[in-house]
Parts: sequence; structure tokens; C-alpha cells
Amino acid sequence: MNRTFVAQLGDMIGEEVTVRGWVFRLRELAKVTFLILHDATGMVQCVANPAQLDGTDLKLDDIVEIRGCVRSEARSKVGFELDLLEITVLNRSAFPLPFNSSSNLAEVPLEVQLDHRPLSLRNPVVGNIFRVQAEILQGFREFLREHHFTEIISSKIVAGGTEGGTNLFEIDYFERAAYLAQSPQFYKEHGVAGFERVFETGHVYRAEPHATSRHLTEYYSLDFEMGFIDGPEDVIALERELLTYIFNRLNERFGEMFTESGVGLLPSMLEVPTWEFGECLERLSQVHGRNDLVDDLDPEAERQLCAIAEQETGVPALFVLGFPLANRPFYTHPRGSGESAESFDLLFRGLEITTGGQRLHRREDLESALRGRGIDPTSFEPHLRMFDVGMPPHGGLAIGLERLTMLITGQKNVREATMYPRDRNRVSP
Amino acid sequence: MNRTFVAQLGDMIGEEVTVRGWVFRLRELAKVTFLILHDATGMVQCVANPAQLDGTDLKLDDIVEIRGCVRSEARSKVGFELDLLEITVLNRSAFPLPFNSSSNLAEVPLEVQLDHRPLSLRNPVVGNIFRVQAEILQGFREFLREHHFTEIISSKIVAGGTEGGTNLFEIDYFERAAYLAQSPQFYKEHGVAGFERVFETGHVYRAEPHATSRHLTEYYSLDFEMGFIDGPEDVIALERELLTYIFNRLNERFGEMFTESGVGLLPSMLEVPTWEFGECLERLSQVHGRNDLVDDLDPEAERQLCAIAEQETGVPALFVLGFPLANRPFYTHPRGSGESAESFDLLFRGLEITTGGQRLHRREDLESALRGRGIDPTSFEPHLRMFDVGMPPHGGLAIGLERLTMLITGQKNVREATMYPRDRNRVSP
Repeated sequence: MNRTFVAQLGDMIGEEVTVRGWVFRLRELAKVTFLILHDATGMVQCVANPAQLDGTDLKLDDIVEIRGCVRSEARSKVGFELDLLEITVLNRSAFPLPFNSSSNLAEVPLEVQLDHRPLSLRNPVVGNIFRVQAEILQGFREFLREHHFTEIISSKIVAGGTEGGTNLFEIDYFERAAYLAQSPQFYKEHGVAGFERVFETGHVYRAEPHATSRHLTEYYSLDFEMGFIDGPEDVIALERELLTYIFNRLNERFGEMFTESGVGLLPSMLEVPTWEFGECLERLSQVHGRNDLVDDLDPEAERQLCAIAEQETGVPALFVLGFPLANRPFYTHPRGSGESAESFDLLFRGLEITTGGQRLHRREDLESALRGRGIDPTSFEPHLRMFDVGMPPHGGLAIGLERLTMLITGQKNVREATMYPRDRNRVSP
Repeated sequence: MNRTFVAQLGDMIGEEVTVRGWVFRLRELAKVTFLILHDATGMVQCVANPAQLDGTDLKLDDIVEIRGCVRSEARSKVGFELDLLEITVLNRSAFPLPFNSSSNLAEVPLEVQLDHRPLSLRNPVVGNIFRVQAEILQGFREFLREHHFTEIISSKIVAGGTEGGTNLFEIDYFERAAYLAQSPQFYKEHGVAGFERVFETGHVYRAEPHATSRHLTEYYSLDFEMGFIDGPEDVIALERELLTYIFNRLNERFGEMFTESGVGLLPSMLEVPTWEFGECLERLSQVHGRNDLVDDLDPEAERQLCAIAEQETGVPALFVLGFPLANRPFYTHPRGSGESAESFDLLFRGLEITTGGQRLHRREDLESALRGRGIDPTSFEPHLRMFDVGMPPHGGLAIGLERLTMLITGQKNVREATMYPRDRNRVSP
């Protein structure tokens, strides 16, 4: 395959090359036709004599091979253009399409974009949402590998839920029922007992019947879990570093886009404060006169707290630590007197993007926590047995990848940051 | 958290440190006790006066914090030991355990290992199988990123199968039926229409009722798909480079282990030959007198071909290209006269680890391929519609991660290379 990528052309001024890609734009003037070709690595403007395109019946999003000569061009943003020598149409797009890859997709309804996902991905604005997502993933894994974490793969077919039996999708599994995993929580705790520090990136499932702009039935969870912590503050400290690492990478590669789109560069997260849950309620009462919250935050409170944090620190983000224990899963470690939990959320740009905390690490504590909730510990025996093998004090967190992508790129609906979103009404394409 | 990792100790000779980890070995002599402590980064031998351990009731796989002084020690493999100053038991393992992390797991039945996965992972031999697996994953992603591939995440909840309706797990999905994805095939082809080059690492599901040493109902697939290929040879060429890149990384980190365990260093894959399917049948006939194979290879033929390749090239690996078209999925591109397919397998160390090829890229060809198999194209309409948006000639492949891990580390059963294997009988832990 003697094919040159657009990204290589800058080093090939004066040379004859063959490029392949999609027709992104086509501007036909009387004496010259400008064609912008788009491949995996970028875009290049090709300049043709209209006669050279005679008979090609060329249109947007057709797929072409172009033989041409790279010419230095000072007026071009990238510094060069391609003088077209020969063009071959490799395949055709249909006509009309509901939109083109160069269309302004802000004017195309999300449902139409989703029904033609490949075409919306070919659009640079939408495509970059998912390039950002891929970079988040890579940054997450790279940072954790450098901090002695081992990647694990846990099963998504499970015999039961991690937090009781609600919101589980049932699978018809041979002679028995099995379920789609709601979380890798138990597996990453087991992973700690094996490797001390583990991470996993993978799907989790919630049979969530309500369609909101923040919820999906299938989402991608970035999980880590670490042993030998002294408290949830150790997990928070690592997340500050982790996100700052990822955000710096994103600013390097996508900074111009963040600035131009108005969403802004990503901040350092190293100084993001930790506020106790009670402290959050007090601030909401003082600043917004809210006294309606008792045992949890609501979406409005998350937005309000981020705004307060932004006023105080310049960054719309905070860790909320010490949620009431009763609202947290049975495996949560109690904090202080035992009414609150060693459990935190990270709020960022108005939304919760992380839940984490310290977990119970002694079998007898887990059993009594289950009994305290009226659950028979024997129903969790396969999980509890793992605590016999020697479990260190441990904790961890989970970040929802689509939500984080949404907030970083400034989308309003998590579906815009999900390549193939799933909800009650959508299972295709 | 003022804790030092074992991997850092070599730079801290003479210093006082606090380490945390598991008791891997314990040897009590009259005047001295040797304790090997194991953490996420390695092992260190701690030397104690027996009196220092009085009252700790210490045993294997207990979890401890040790304050000690790093001492240079020429007789140690790593060059240092830790003189114990103080020990605190952080948590205890149960007694007796079915085995210990320092046990010889070759003597522990696989089912017992799986039932206590964290403990078997803590064993270095078993743990390294999954460290190799994590390194394969990382190498796969890194190589492809460097070659202009974008990572995608596709849904595992689908409305139908990619290859007809067999072997699908059904999910109880609100008011309708949905299924677990058998393959990201369609999504990665759509991804090509969006990004030109995409990869995905994720689970796939097969409702495979037969339990063999090579099959699971859930496995992890390493997929890539690339546009603008001239034929399947382009995909094969990239896989040669990709595997060589991964294998070199593995040899660097695990070479000593590969050599000591007898499985041997991993070869360069750059010169792995491509044999036509017909050529393979001829060789099997000539070398082994086999004339029973007509339209596919069987497991014995895969082993025999790898042995023949090893004799000829020194490497037990070959690409088999041009399988009979009738046995390949409808989207497969025909080869030559049309009886065979632009489709290949990679056989390595006796087993198929990759299936790949060139796909049809025109909607009309896909429709006529479906009709030729007696399938109504309208049942694939959500997929076929994506070919309207402008699809380049393309191809790709899928590698089964667990199988590859099994062959690289010399295991006999794919369950040994799967952290939480799933089959008809096992959905827990």
C-alpha cells in the first residue's frame, strides 16, 4: 500500500504523493476547484483544474484516492497544498444524506446524528469529543501503570448485584439466571487482595428506566482500587494527581479547541478542596438559603456547590467527604462516630463525576454491616470468602467516562459523549 | 501515607523505612526469623530477632506493616535486606486456607484456584500470567495509537447478532429482547467510516454450551479495523508488526520468566509466512497423509501446520489466507474467482489466535451476499445504512486476549489465563 497520510505531507514539499480519504469540502470556481481531503490524520486542501474532475461526478463524503504534488503555500494554515494530478473515486456516498461530515451539527438533532454515527464521527467537532475520550482513557491507564497499578479484567456476567437486587438486567444464561454487572466493585477489591493496586476500564450496566440527560443503561467506568490506605484522603490525593495528569495531556493536544469552543482550558486539580458533607449543607444554607437537604445532595446542590467552590478557589470542583453512612453501600467504611461514611464524591463543573471511599476490610465488619441492613450474609458468601485470604485496608473510586467527557468538551447530554448510547428506547445502531 | 514500596528500597540503603504488604514466607530459626514481605512492587527479605515477633502469632498471608532499616546484603539477589525494627499486623488471613500465596499452585486444582482467585493472583507464577496479559493490552493499544488508530467503545447491548441469530445470550431489556454482542464487528466497520482507523478492547459473548479448554462464554477481544487497504495482506502486514512490538515488550519484562518456565522467549513475527488455504491442505496431505479436510481446518490441523511452519521457518506460526467463502460471515470480501475469501487466520503455537480479513464495502455487495445466504437484507438495515455514508475499502482482525495470554505463558487451559472465566457451569466468583 503506497499511500501517504496527510500528517506526513509537511515533510514532503515538492514530492509526488498518493493520498486517500473523504471529500470534506468542495468549492468549484470558474477556473479552479478546491477540494479538502480528510483522512485519519488530518485535512489537506487539494487544488485542481475543473477539467481534471470532469466525469467524476464528485460530491461531499465520496471516497477518493488523489495523486498529487505537495506545494508550499504560505496562505495555508498548515503551510502547504496539494496540486491534484489524478483522482480516482474509490467509493461513493449516497445522495442525499441527512447531513454531511462538514455540516454544522449543532443544527442536526441528536437522534439523527446517532442514527448516522459514522457520519457524525467524521465531523471534526463531534469526532473530537471521542478523540478526547480516547485520550482520557489512555491518560487514566498510563498514570496508574506508572503508580504500580495492574490492569485487570473482571467478568460482566455475575450471579448477583453488588448493592442488592435492584436495577439489574437479567440474562438468559443456560439453565439459570445471571445478571449484567452493575460495577466491578467486588472484583477490584479482590484484585487488591491479589495485586494491591488494580484498575479496570469497562462497561457497567444499570436497568435505569428513567431517561435523563445524565443517565444511561450502559456506561463506561474507570475504576481503581488500592490497598494499604490510611483513609479516603489517600484516594482523594491520588485522584487529584490523576486528573491533573489527564487534564494536562488534554490541554496539550486539544487546548486550542477548548479555548475556541468557549468551554475553556482544563484546570489543575491539585488544589481542589475537600469539604465535609455537613460543611456543604451549611454553605448551601448560608449562600442559597437552602435547608431542604438532609442525607444527600441533589443535582441543583451539586451545581451550587461547584459555583461556590469556583468563587473561592477559581476552579468549579470540590470533593464532598463524609456522606451519611445509611445512604452508602454496605461495604462502606464508617467515619468518625459512625453516622457518616469514609465516602466521597467529586463534583466538577456542576456534576458528580466520581464516587469513592474507603471500604470495610474485615469479614466480620462486612457481615455485621449486612445484618444491620437486614441482609443475610450467606447470600454474599462467594464475595465474603475473599476476605479470608488476607485483605489490607483499602479504598478506591469510579469515574463515569461519558460524563467526564461530556463536561470536558462542554456537552449538555451524556449521549453526545457516548458513541452508541443505550437507554430504555435505544438499542440500535 | 508515609509508606515505601519495596521497589524503592534499593535506593535507600541505610535508611529507616516503613513497608506494607503480605507475609509471603516465614522461616523461624533458633536465633533469627526470616520473613519475606510482598507488596505491589516486589519482595524483600526482612530479618528479625524471634523476640520481636513474640505475641504477633504471625502466619503466611497475614498483612503487616514493618518499620525497618535497609541493609546492603551481597548474598541477596536484590542486594539488600530489611532489618526489622517493629512489626504491626494490619489484618489477618484465615487459617487454614486451601493454599497459600507461596504454595506450588501446579499442585492445586484449577477449580480451587478460581474459587480463591485473589490468593492465586498473589502467587507470583499465577500473578505473572495476568501481568503479561495487562502488558499485551497496553502494547496493543500503544502500537495502534502510534499508527493513527483511535480507540472506540461500542455497545455490548445489541438488537441482533453480527452473524445470524445463533449462540446469542438474550437480555431481559425493558419491553423488548436485546442481546449481548458477539463481536464489535459492525461497530468497528462503522468506526472506519468515521475515523478511518479504529481499535477496541472489550468483552464479547458467545452462548457456547460446550466447555472445552479453548472456549468461554465471555472473552476479551482485541479488535482493530482499518480503511483504504488494498487487500487482506495489508492487515496481515500490520499484525506482523503489532505482535512483534508486543512480543519484544514482553521479552524485555518477562524474558527471564519465559526462559526459566521452559515456554521460551517470544519470536519475531515479521517473517511469519502466509500460506493459501489450498496450500495448507496440500502440506497436510504430504506431511501427515491427511485428506479428510475440505472446507476448514480442525484443531489437529492447526497444531500440525504450526509444526510444519516451525520446521521451515523456526517459528511455529503461519497465516492461513483464502478460506472457502461459504464458511465465512456474509460481510467477507471474496478472493480471486470468488470461491475463496479474503479472509485469514493466524495460527501460533498450535492454535488459532486471530481471525481477520477484508470486508465488503459497498451496500449492494452486502445485500447480494445476504440474499445469497437466504437472509432478507432489511433485517440488517440499521447496519447497511452506515454504508451509505461513504465507506472505504477496509479490513481488520480480532485477537482473543485470553488465548494469546495462554499460549505466551504456556498454559493448557484458557481458564488459567482468564481472571474470572465464564462457562455454562461457572458464573461466580
